[in-house]
This record gives sequence, C-alpha cells and structure tokens, in this order.
Amino acid sequence: MKNTFGESVSVTLFGESHGETIGAVLDGLAPGVIADDAFIGLKLSQRRPQGSVSTKRVEPDRFRIVSGVYNGKTTGAPICIQIPNENVKSDDYTRLRELARPGHADYTARMKYHGFEDRRGGGHFSGRLTAPLVAVGAIAISALRARGIEIGTHVQKCAGISDDGFGDLNKDIAYLNTQTFAVLNDAKKAEMIAAIEDAAQRNDSVGGVLETAVIGVPAGVGEPWFDTLEGVLSHALFSIPAVKGVEFGAGFAIADMKGSEANDALRAENGKVTAITNHNGGINGGISNGMPIIFRCAVKPTPSIGISQETVDLNSMENAEIEVAGRHDPAIVHRARAVVDSISALVLCDQLALRFGTDWLGGHA
Amino acid sequence: MKNTFGESVSVTLFGESHGETIGAVLDGLAPGVIADDAFIGLKLSQRRPQGSVSTKRVEPDRFRIVSGVYNGKTTGAPICIQIPNENVKSDDYTRLRELARPGHADYTARMKYHGFEDRRGGGHFSGRLTAPLVAVGAIAISALRARGIEIGTHVQKCAGISDDGFGDLNKDIAYLNTQTFAVLNDAKKAEMIAAIEDAAQRNDSVGGVLETAVIGVPAGVGEPWFDTLEGVLSHALFSIPAVKGVEFGAGFAIADMKGSEANDALRAENGKVTAITNHNGGINGGISNGMPIIFRCAVKPTPSIGISQETVDLNSMENAEIEVAGRHDPAIVHRARAVVDSISALVLCDQLALRFGTDWLGGHA
Amino acid sequence: MKNTFGESVSVTLFGESHGETIGAVLDGLAPGVIADDAFIGLKLSQRRPQGSVSTKRVEPDRFRIVSGVYNGKTTGAPICIQIPNENVKSDDYTRLRELARPGHADYTARMKYHGFEDRRGGGHFSGRLTAPLVAVGAIAISALRARGIEIGTHVQKCAGISDDGFGDLNKDIAYLNTQTFAVLNDAKKAEMIAAIEDAAQRNDSVGGVLETAVIGVPAGVGEPWFDTLEGVLSHALFSIPAVKGVEFGAGFAIADMKGSEANDALRAENGKVTAITNHNGGINGGISNGMPIIFRCAVKPTPSIGISQETVDLNSMENAEIEVAGRHDPAIVHRARAVVDSISALVLCDQLALRFGTDWLGGHA
Amino acid sequence: MKNTFGESVSVTLFGESHGETIGAVLDGLAPGVIADDAFIGLKLSQRRPQGSVSTKRVEPDRFRIVSGVYNGKTTGAPICIQIPNENVKSDDYTRLRELARPGHADYTARMKYHGFEDRRGGGHFSGRLTAPLVAVGAIAISALRARGIEIGTHVQKCAGISDDGFGDLNKDIAYLNTQTFAVLNDAKKAEMIAAIEDAAQRNDSVGGVLETAVIGVPAGVGEPWFDTLEGVLSHALFSIPAVKGVEFGAGFAIADMKGSEANDALRAENGKVTAITNHNGGINGGISNGMPIIFRCAVKPTPSIGISQETVDLNSMENAEIEVAGRHDPAIVHRARAVVDSISALVLCDQLALRFGTDWLGGHA
Repeated sequence: MKNTFGESVSVTLFGESHGETIGAVLDGLAPGVIADDAFIGLKLSQRRPQGSVSTKRVEPDRFRIVSGVYNGKTTGAPICIQIPNENVKSDDYTRLRELARPGHADYTARMKYHGFEDRRGGGHFSGRLTAPLVAVGAIAISALRARGIEIGTHVQKCAGISDDGFGDLNKDIAYLNTQTFAVLNDAKKAEMIAAIEDAAQRNDSVGGVLETAVIGVPAGVGEPWFDTLEGVLSHALFSIPAVKGVEFGAGFAIADMKGSEANDALRAENGKVTAITNHNGGINGGISNGMPIIFRCAVKPTPSIGISQETVDLNSMENAEIEVAGRHDPAIVHRARAVVDSISALVLCDQLALRFGTDWLGGHA
Repeated sequence: MKNTFGESVSVTLFGESHGETIGAVLDGLAPGVIADDAFIGLKLSQRRPQGSVSTKRVEPDRFRIVSGVYNGKTTGAPICIQIPNENVKSDDYTRLRELARPGHADYTARMKYHGFEDRRGGGHFSGRLTAPLVAVGAIAISALRARGIEIGTHVQKCAGISDDGFGDLNKDIAYLNTQTFAVLNDAKKAEMIAAIEDAAQRNDSVGGVLETAVIGVPAGVGEPWFDTLEGVLSHALFSIPAVKGVEFGAGFAIADMKGSEANDALRAENGKVTAITNHNGGINGGISNGMPIIFRCAVKPTPSIGISQETVDLNSMENAEIEVAGRHDPAIVHRARAVVDSISALVLCDQLALRFGTDWLGGHA
Repeated sequence: MKNTFGESVSVTLFGESHGETIGAVLDGLAPGVIADDAFIGLKLSQRRPQGSVSTKRVEPDRFRIVSGVYNGKTTGAPICIQIPNENVKSDDYTRLRELARPGHADYTARMKYHGFEDRRGGGHFSGRLTAPLVAVGAIAISALRARGIEIGTHVQKCAGISDDGFGDLNKDIAYLNTQTFAVLNDAKKAEMIAAIEDAAQRNDSVGGVLETAVIGVPAGVGEPWFDTLEGVLSHALFSIPAVKGVEFGAGFAIADMKGSEANDALRAENGKVTAITNHNGGINGGISNGMPIIFRCAVKPTPSIGISQETVDLNSMENAEIEVAGRHDPAIVHRARAVVDSISALVLCDQLALRFGTDWLGGHA
Repeated sequence: MKNTFGESVSVTLFGESHGETIGAVLDGLAPGVIADDAFIGLKLSQRRPQGSVSTKRVEPDRFRIVSGVYNGKTTGAPICIQIPNENVKSDDYTRLRELARPGHADYTARMKYHGFEDRRGGGHFSGRLTAPLVAVGAIAISALRARGIEIGTHVQKCAGISDDGFGDLNKDIAYLNTQTFAVLNDAKKAEMIAAIEDAAQRNDSVGGVLETAVIGVPAGVGEPWFDTLEGVLSHALFSIPAVKGVEFGAGFAIADMKGSEANDALRAENGKVTAITNHNGGINGGISNGMPIIFRCAVKPTPSIGISQETVDLNSMENAEIEVAGRHDPAIVHRARAVVDSISALVLCDQLALRFGTDWLGGHA
C-alpha cells in the first residue's frame, strides 16, 4: 500500500501542496479517545512556520474533523481530518515547471508518474502533507497519554550546534511539549536560531538531528523479526521528507563500543526488571523492554535554496542552472519535530492495539 | 504480520536455534529465475562462522530447497528452503535458563511469550535464523543480477577501525562478493581481525558498521510516503539482530551540511539524468533516482560475552551475576554482511515487482 | 486494516450517514487515467434513490475531487473524493437511539464500540457510505475501459422475479450501463417494480440477486491460494451492506452437476484458448482464464421496515417493540448494482496492477 | 501477498503435489496453546482419502512440527508443520504434460507462470496442499476450543442428496467432529456414498455443499467495511480448490424473503441479547452478534474424470481429446470438510487476536 501505513491502527494521507484540501484518515483507533481541538491546534502550531527561521508561507491550518469523532470522542470509525490550502501562490513555481530542483523529488516523480504529477509546490511530495499527519497524530498522542505513555522530541543538533542531552525524562518531555522550537538548553537554542538566520541570509539552508524519548511503553511490544519496534518506527519515520538516518539507543556510536559497554545490565527492583544503562534504546530483540524508547532522526537541510545549482530541464533534457525562488524554509528540523512526535504516536498506537487488542487504548480492556 | 515481510515478493521465516529445522519461504518471485545451489552455498559460506573471529558452533548449513524450484529454476510458487540444525549443544545454555542475558531478548521474550518461548540458544531470536534468509536471498540476488542490478557490502568499520570508502562501484562490488571477510583495504582487514581476536581473548566483543551499494536500480521505484525506499529497506534491515541504526547517502553527516552542499546537482548526459554527487544515496522523495543506492547499518557488539554482568533471575526475580558460557562470536559484523545483502535483495525484488509487475524479474515483461 | 482494501491499488473509506462529509481515497491508480466528472456523476445517479422504489432521502451527491487529479487526469497520488451530507434529518432516528433495529448493526456496533459509535442514521454502517465508493470506482472503471475491460451488472432477481440471463455480453453490458434500474428484460423490470411498490405499501421490503459479467480481463491474473480472484472479489463484495452470498460461474448450482457437465472443455481458435462453456465463471485455480468473469451477489431485503418487530433496548436491556420510522428503501438491490460495479472495478485494478505493474492501467507499460 | 493469509495470526503455504515436502507456517498464534499430535492426526485423517469414495493415492500424512512448539505447547514463534510426499507416481501424468485438463488450472497456470510451473500432479495447485492447512488448522481449532469456540461442518448436500439440517448445535458439532464422512443423517450418508460410487464407476465425479456452524464467538468481532467477518471468511474459503460459492445465514435464499421474514428479531435474556431466528448467520454489519455463525460452501465436482473431453495441447496449440488417467477422487466434498473447519479456525483466530490482542487465545488476557 502506498499512502496508508499501519495494521490495526492505520493512517492514510492525501492531498497536494497547492490542491484544494489536504487530509489524513486515522483508522482503527479505539472508541472513546478524547479528540481535543485545542490540543490538535497546539500540535499544528508546533509544526507551523516560525518567524525568521521558517518559510514566509504561513498557513492558518484551519483543520476540520469530518468523521470519526462524535461529542468530542473517537467513535471507532475512521477519523478524517482535513486542512484546506489557503495561502497558495502557484506563480512562484511557474518557472520551475521544467527544471528539476536538486535534492527534491522532481526528477524521481517524473520517472514514476510520467509527467502527470501535480508539480505545483511539490505536489503530493510537499512537506505540507505533514500537517494532517500532525493533526491525526495529536489524537494518537492523546490516546497514549491516557495510558501513561508520553513522547518528547528535541532538536538535538542544528547547523552543527548540539543541545544538551536528555536528563530527567518526565521533566524534559513535559517541558519540550510546551515549546515551539524545542531545545533543552536555551543558550543553544539562541545559537541555533542565529545559525539558521545566517544561512537564510546567504540563501542557503541547514539541517539537524531530532532526538525522541518515549516513556511508559509496557515491556513485550514488537516482534523478533521484520516487525521489530525499530523496524516499524524507522519505516514510518523515513517517510518524513528530509529524514536520511534513524538510530536507536546509542545508534551508530554502539558500533564502536565493546559488548561489555553496550550491554545494558539488568536489575530487579520491586518486582520489576529495569536496565541500568539504556544503550539499546528500550528495545531488545525488536521488543520493548519497558525502558524509555530513545531514537534520533537525521534531517537534511531544506533542498530549496536561492543559490544557483546545476540541473536539468526535464522536457528538453538540456543542462541548466536553477535558483529556487519562492518562499522556503532555511531549516525544517525544528518544524519536523511535531511530525516525529505524531508519527511515533501513530506507530505506537498500532503496535499496542496489535498487542493488546483494539479496546486497550480506549481503556475498555 | 509477524514473521512475513514484503507485499508482491515476500519472505516468511520459521525455526529456532536448537529446534529440528530452520527455514524460510520466499513467495511471489517471478517464474524462470535461476536457483543455483552453488551460489546459495557461496552466500551461506559468507555468513558462516570464520575461524578465530567467530563462534566455534559451525553448522554445515546443508540446505534443501523443498518447493518452488523445478529443473533449477523458480516456478513462481513459494520457495521453501530448509536447513537442519545439526551442531546443537543445548547443555551449555542450561544454566542460563533463568538468567536473562543482558543485551539479549531473554527478558523481552518472557514479557511477550509468558515463559512458553523456546529459550534454548536464543530460540527464535537466534542469529541462526538469518541462515535461511541468506539462502532465499541468494535467489533474489540472482533475479536482480539478471536485470543488471548488483549489491555489494563491506565492513566499513569494525572495532573502531575504518575501511576505505567505495571507489569504482562496479569493481568494488565484484571484489566484495568474492570475499568472506569483506573489506576493501586488506591492511584494514588485518587490523580489524586483530582487534576482534583481542576482544575474544578478553571474553569481550566488538561491533561495526556495514556499508552497502546497489547499482542498476532503475529510477522511479519507491513511494513518496510510508513506503519510501528508505522506509522499506530500513524496516527490513532493522530486523537483522544487532542493527541499531540505518542511514542513507550521507546519513547523519548530512545533518551538518548546508543545503548547497547536501543537494546533489543534476546533469543530463546522453539523454539520461545523473547526479554529480550522491549525498542522498540514490533516493529522492522516497523514490530511486537511478544513482547507486548507498546505506549503512550500525551493528552492535555481540551481547554474549564471558565477562561477568549484573542481571536478574526471571523466575525468582532476584538480582544475580552472569557470565555467558558457550560458543559465541566476538564479532558478527562481518557475518551480518551476507544478511544485509540478502535482505536488501528481497526488499528490492518486492519493490520492483510492485512497480513493474510479477513478470519483470523473470524477464518475461 | 479496517477501512482500507487493496494492495497496489487501494481504497479507504470514511464518514457517517449524518456527519459533515463522507469520502473515499483511491490510492495507487496509475497516472494518466481520465477522471471524468460526468461519468462519476452518471455512476452516482445509478446508485441514487429512484422514485417509488427507493427512500425519500435523496442526496444530490455533490462530489468534489480534492486531490490526485490534475487537468482531468489522475496524477498517481491518492485521489480523495468527498460528498457532503446535505439532506440530513436526524430527528427521525431520535427514538431509535436505544432500540436495536433488527437486521441492522446497532447491537453489534454497541458490542464493538461500547456506545461511542455515532448512531445517527446508522453512522459509519450506513449504506450512504457506498456513494464515495461508487465515485472512486467510476475512475477505476474508466481505467479498465481504456484497457478493454468492461463490467456490467443486472438485477438477476428481485422479490422472487427473475430477469433473463446474459446473452451477447458486449451488447448486454453496454445496455445495462445506460440503465438506472438495470434489467435485461423490460417486462420483468415492470414486474419487479410493482413488487417493490407493493412491499413498500405494506411497510415491508424485498431483496434480490445481482449478476455481474466482466469481459476483457486477460488470462493469468489471480493467485492459486488465498488471493484467488474469487477470494479477493468476494472479500470486497461482502462489504456491501446486505450482501449475504457470493457465487462464481454456476455457483451453488455446480454442486449438483457431474464433473463431465461442470468442466469447461477447451478449444484453440486463432492461437487463443477459449472455453466452450463457462461454468467456472472465467476462473480456474483462482486465476483468470480469459473468459468472462461471472458472479452473483445475494442481497437481503432492507432491514428498515415499518412493521412492528421484537427487539431490545440496549440501555435498559429490556425487551421492546420497534417500528422503524423515517425514510427507507423498500429494496436496495437495484441501487446496490452501481456499488457492485465499482467494487469489482477497484478489485480488478488492484489485481491487474499487482500482476502487470503500476503503469499498466495508465497505458505506460 | 500470495501464499500468506491473515494479519495478526497468519498462515503461509508451500509445496507441490510431487515435490519433496509440503508444509504450512502458522504465525502469530498465542503462546501456550496445546499442540496435540493425536488431534492433528485426527483432523488429517478426516481429510484423507476414504475407501471407495476417494482417490487411490493414500498418503500416510506423516507430519512433523519443526518449529514453534516446545513441550507440547505453542511458543508464540511461527509453527511450521511439514508433510513429506511419499506416495508419488509421476508417470501417470506424463501424457498430460501438454494437454490442459478441463476444469483444472493447467491453462491458467501456463498463462501466469509461462511454462516454468511444476505441472506434476497439479503442482502447487494440487488439493494435496490442503493437508498442511488442516494440520496447522488443528492447532487453531485447539486454541478456539480452549476459549469455548467450536466448529462443525457437515456434507449438507452431495450428488444432489441433502442431509438433514442442523438441530441442537452443541450435539451436532460434537457428533460431526467424530465422523469421517460427516453427515447428520446416516441414511442420507449411505445414499450419498452410493451416488459417489456410481459416479466413480462411470469415470465421472460429483459435487456438493458443506454447511458449517461456529458457536461461542463473542459479539463484536469483525469490521463494518472490507474486513467484514463474511469478507475475510469467504476470502479464505474460496482458496479451497473447487469452492465456487459461499453464503452466510439464509444466503441466496434471503434474496427471496421479505424484510419482515429476514430480519432476526432480538430478545434480552439474563442480560444477554439473542436473536430469535438466525437468517443473518450470526453476523450483522460485518460483525459477530454472538449467535452461531452459519455458512455454506459450494464444492464443484472433481475436474479429473476418466471421460473423454475436448481440450488443447498447450505446446502445439492444437485441439485434442483428453481422458484423465491416474488416481482421482470421484468426490472431494467429504474430504474438503476438514479443510473448511481448519480455514475457518485460522480466520477466526486472526480476527479474535486482532480484536482482543495476541494473548487472548492463549488465555493470558
């Protein structure tokens, strides 16, 4: 399946950057979960462009829940959330119609869709499609929260500047979820913003790394092969435009450790098994071990830049130069944060429903 | 689904480390693909334990194709390859029956299977299960090869020692596929082996990074959302035991680049579009662009070590110490190489069959 | 997955009878397929209530294609078609809120959704949800038509009155697709309508059988096990509310035949193999044989009737009597016809895309 | 996916009629379910050829559970059951190699597999493949039984002779499960057997109808759209070779009823809702209502007959005559009974695991 993901709880995505409406269908979520407009709005605001460090195309994201919610609670039927495209300026892109933008999907889309693709504003490939994902993800986050599961993500690195690491996760997650540009150390945040603004002034862009912690997932969720918790999370995370790497626990750094360092020793306390360290990021053999689930996503710099680049005219097949005009983000890592939260929540809802049944997230089992 | 992966071309895995037989079912592959016993044997030999740098449990891997192949070619029906477990010594593990081995899935298996799991030798979680994956993967590799697609993987890093990077991919891939301990620079290989032996002597283990290149995949394969080529590859790769990170192209390093560095400029040559650099690893917007597909997997050090570690007795729930006796690998990164090749081939066969139909890989379309 | 069906070409359904909007997402269809508003409107009109033989709730079905179509052709991205609910009168159902309507899903919905379900007008269970299915199905029908595949369905039986059987399929299919109440023999149609009106006057309802023929499907589509063409078609057809039986070829009548009668003898003509009879309905071993695919669906009488029936108040769990007030259909078999056409088209598009690749239906392969 | 069916609990099939081994992998079943060799053997014996009314190819069905069962109980890992082909006589089929057998899949297999298919004894299409399905299904039946769910099937019709209808389901199901040729009325069974023997003597074959009852399925299982309980059951049932129709409850007869007859009035007794009649076969809106689930499968006469039929030589494409020599069944409806039981059990295990989680069938939730 192409624009649908998940087995017991699934999400289907539709829409284009400059089309009439974008939306997502969240299906299979337990009945009785709170769907709070204010909370959905809050999550959308965390994804929305933010002043000097983002694109000038600011959408109000006036979402409408058109199905699956009744009297403020999920019914068990598919939840469709739609967001109209309001601030559309297709003219900026007219000149790009034939020139493939480097780092974008223009050329690959042509090879797949034979020129029938809607190229305006990136069409179906646009990062704008993550807005409805964030919206339905907000309901998934609410469902998890009611079962004591919390997700928090910070900009662990941006433009080469590193944030502090996670400390007290309960506190850090709570804090991050109130932040728009989510960083644990305020001084680092200021440095990051300055670096983004600097790149913007030079018509360039920067990337970064997002680090996520999930607490409260019970042990015993995930599969030994194929549908490992790492596998299903990464599968979904890589569909966030610009993500080029996903790692769990110590990630690539674990490759340089000794077994005696990498293994997380276990300890029993009050009849519960915990790990003394968490280099495995809360997952052993593909299955949650009850420790915080920790992962990081590498986010590449926005490919739309105002600097001249070599490219090809896909119609004439002649070499050309391109400067991408229009409104673009000098960085998206801070905006992608809300998408990572939502996608993680959707995947976890699916895994939990598969493990404990379709009633569990609604509190009926 | 749990032990099955893929849509048009799928693989199903079964068996336990100390059970009677392990096996895999490869389904949906085009009819008419060569299934060459010698080539399957070669790939299995690349996964088999290798002298001083591996476990002393050496299995002959006497595989049998029990279905789906007739007169040396695939029939289009499911191909089941089985490998009996011959060199089984369950006694070594008797003492471990109650002690959860740190870094292993013993505790998570207990939480998922409530003690009914077959714990002998890691049971269904054992890396031994990758042998039938390699065997069916060899047929997938043959199918790709007949369409001009080649896969090569090298130990890019082991015990902190780095191999040379890829150069001429045609030559490098051809070379790597003849090697058992696949490294591009022989001097580096010697250093790595010495480091593994050193770790073995101290009853410890080391990890590493595998880097893979795939050439010949046509542009236009993969999906913009969810079933991005990165997403489906990573999903499958994370089910290789010990993989804790997957990155494409420049991967995590891309997070520190500027857009002007990360974007791969395009050029038309002889009516074909190519990228001047390949920081995106052959994939834009989730879809292949015709450039080599490049990715890396972080492989953690083998968790079975002879050094004393803290753990828990899962029956009494008391704290304890464990030294994992038995025959284990001081490193598995070099053996995991064949698994990465096979899993990549299986995923690509699936994606190509979805894109071009079920006849394409057999050359009938 | 719950409200999504199909692998390469899939459909996702959302909405409730009295909600804001109902819709469907058609995903995976080849780029370049014509999406003709007039044709979609025609198919919707064939499903719409028809005078005396239908409900008084007549919806204009003002559909909007909000994504996936650009310049009148499919782009390859998901196609979302929405239809607002305009003629909603929830008051009629107020009294039913606690009384389970016999033959309906009120009680089973309560057991599944714990009372959170939107019960207004049947909510997500309403036959109204078939309108967007018909709309996206119309595009699937267009795609098939461009490849020479045509689908036609007639009311083979209604209220016990049988239509004539299929004769010249090319002519019959062409004729049926121009009809609203699709019957081959006009005299029989008049009898059926009289029987429906008679039932309506007695506040009762009648059922019927739909018979479908599909011509032009190439031989070699379908799977021997599980995803047999019969299996995937029936899977989808049974989701049409009121369908309680599906049979292929001679169907249940084949049970009484001898092998020598049931087998379809083969004959070669002009290098093509055809069957002399078609008791197997165009499918052998789960795979199309190039003959017309023939199947029938049993459609039960509408469960909403104005006659008093015993039932239970789901809140008090006390026995009660119910007469279903409101606007209902004395028969739906004639309206279900358009749904059968659309669902069959969606399933066949999926099977053909799986078999021949994602470009085939768009004519690019 | 092709030879795999199910989402949470799935089955994968492999093997050919004259290959080395046939088998099935049952995956996702809860840990702790009893896997009783004697019970598996009993179910296999119900599928095995039976004296004068069956083929002379009698296989001992020496099954081996090679994975997923430890100490007599399921472990939660995939269960692979294998059955070697022992009584293989490929010579009988030599002359058929080019002649497509009418009613069989020879021609469709050729169109799908381009001549690479293993045609010996029908290859992967052979009804012999149902033996491993029955074997793994026996474990699924055991799992259901432990939760109070029982399945029974009788030959409701054979060669035009009808058995009595179901009466007391508890008693009838218990009785049927002890029978090899499962009929409720002994006199009818004798008539059926005589009719089969009569057909056999004339080198012809007969068909029949199987009727199945499932008791104990809790209300609230199944989905409103697509994955209706009817849809998923029929999907699987149609993969039983020779099944050409599936109907639920009153089935095709419901088409002739009035709404006032077809609706099942409800009644509350002891805080439980039951239906007074069961014309809907235990399913409303695709979801179980707690009543017995009732369905019927039409089974066509065995296509292998010794009477001369017209056909085509697939190599020369010339018209020809064929009399199918070899050992074949004059009827298979009585043998298909065990397959229907097993497939129904597999589908229900899947649906129950999806609904109530992966522990429910093992009694851990």
